[in-house]
Amino acid sequence: MLTIIEAVTAWQAVRKSTIFMDNTIGLVPTMGNLHAGHQSLLQRAKQENDITVLTIFVNPTQFNDPADLANYPKTFANDIQIAEANKIDYVFAPCYQDMYPDQYHYKISESELSKKLCGQYRAGHFDGVLTIVLKLLQLVKAHNAYFGEKDYQQLQLVKGLTEAFFIDTKIIACPTVRDENGLALSSRNNLLSNEQLALARHFPALLGSKLTIVEIIKQLTALNFSVEYVEEHFDRRFGAVKLGNVRLIDNFRL
Amino acid sequence: MLTIIEAVTAWQAVRKSTIFMDNTIGLVPTMGNLHAGHQSLLQRAKQENDITVLTIFVNPTQFNDPADLANYPKTFANDIQIAEANKIDYVFAPCYQDMYPDQYHYKISESELSKKLCGQYRAGHFDGVLTIVLKLLQLVKAHNAYFGEKDYQQLQLVKGLTEAFFIDTKIIACPTVRDENGLALSSRNNLLSNEQLALARHFPALLGSKLTIVEIIKQLTALNFSVEYVEEHFDRRFGAVKLGNVRLIDNFRL
Repeated sequence: MLTIIEAVTAWQAVRKSTIFMDNTIGLVPTMGNLHAGHQSLLQRAKQENDITVLTIFVNPTQFNDPADLANYPKTFANDIQIAEANKIDYVFAPCYQDMYPDQYHYKISESELSKKLCGQYRAGHFDGVLTIVLKLLQLVKAHNAYFGEKDYQQLQLVKGLTEAFFIDTKIIACPTVRDENGLALSSRNNLLSNEQLALARHFPALLGSKLTIVEIIKQLTALNFSVEYVEEHFDRRFGAVKLGNVRLIDNFRL
Repeated sequence: MLTIIEAVTAWQAVRKSTIFMDNTIGLVPTMGNLHAGHQSLLQRAKQENDITVLTIFVNPTQFNDPADLANYPKTFANDIQIAEANKIDYVFAPCYQDMYPDQYHYKISESELSKKLCGQYRAGHFDGVLTIVLKLLQLVKAHNAYFGEKDYQQLQLVKGLTEAFFIDTKIIACPTVRDENGLALSSRNNLLSNEQLALARHFPALLGSKLTIVEIIKQLTALNFSVEYVEEHFDRRFGAVKLGNVRLIDNFRL
């Protein structure tokens, strides 16, 4: 039976109750608009824990672009159906006021990795991510929390966060889920026109190819992608591009 | 029986042990060089909790001035004697590497209160305070943590930190302890010459007087104090001065 909780105080009361005693807890933090990528995280969490908690919170502080926040797909009713179909135990979907009683006066920042890759193009994005993740980790007190490798930089930063602040939750990396054309699933894919969607498949194809970085950027640009970066770090190749207003990221192990 | 623990991993193992089960824990975080002000915190923690944990860590990231860090009094053997005399259960005294596995790449900052009062004169000080306090709160998982009102701005910022990040530890404010001349006890008082110490008593006497701010600053300056600020906020009057290289702060309820 799925229980949906919105108020932080209600969640805290449930979390302290005997239901959670002696059970392992798996957390899947999301911004909603659930797709098969999220479902793979939910299934993994269910396999490895007694109780699975899905959080849905479109976190404004991680959107550097107000238009991106305004356009971000919000599909709560459908998300709840997916949670039920996946036999999730709890959906925790708080409001901004509850999550930011401090009005975002307190923030976490990271000074090295967060400045590279997407950090060069999205000022303040990772501050918002790290801040909301710490809040959720403190509230849910999960044994395990599941993050997708599509957002690899975020995953590494969250791992570092739990180490720096001695947080007991284990961060579990889950493989990127792709559509039949190889495009990494993302809520922002819903914002692509059919034409853009047909074009988008070239992004993972080129990024995951044996071509040089220079050649990849050249071919993406020729296809009308606006390339933010293609770079290699930690034995991986990372890329970020825009098709119109829609920003896509991906990464492949080398 | 006092147990002294230095390694973070050793502390984590003890904290998970059955000794702590069903017991309330009181935390007194300090930078050592314990005086009667600290002892009042320790006694309060002992009264209100089953187990009292004293942490001793001279936190480099909160020293904006390297000379201040170098000069900060370090009296570990004496501190242990005081802990024993006060029948404290645990002293946790970690090293920098253990507390900052991230090399301080991750930090907490606050954007409003931390910019006022001492924040105007000590760049990065409160970032360092908030970051180390969060680390200690995460490691100790105390029911109550005790802070002195002498560092009133710090106390308010730490309270805000626990609210912003949903930390279960309750922050307990304890009254400032003063010497026979009214001077607020502080480890930095040990750095004053006899002549400066005799002069120092005028600081609380003037700050806590009915005089206007302008008059207080005038008289302190005439006495050879270098005044950083005298300001009123939250129905309190706050002051920071220097005598030579030694910085003193204090505050009084209006």
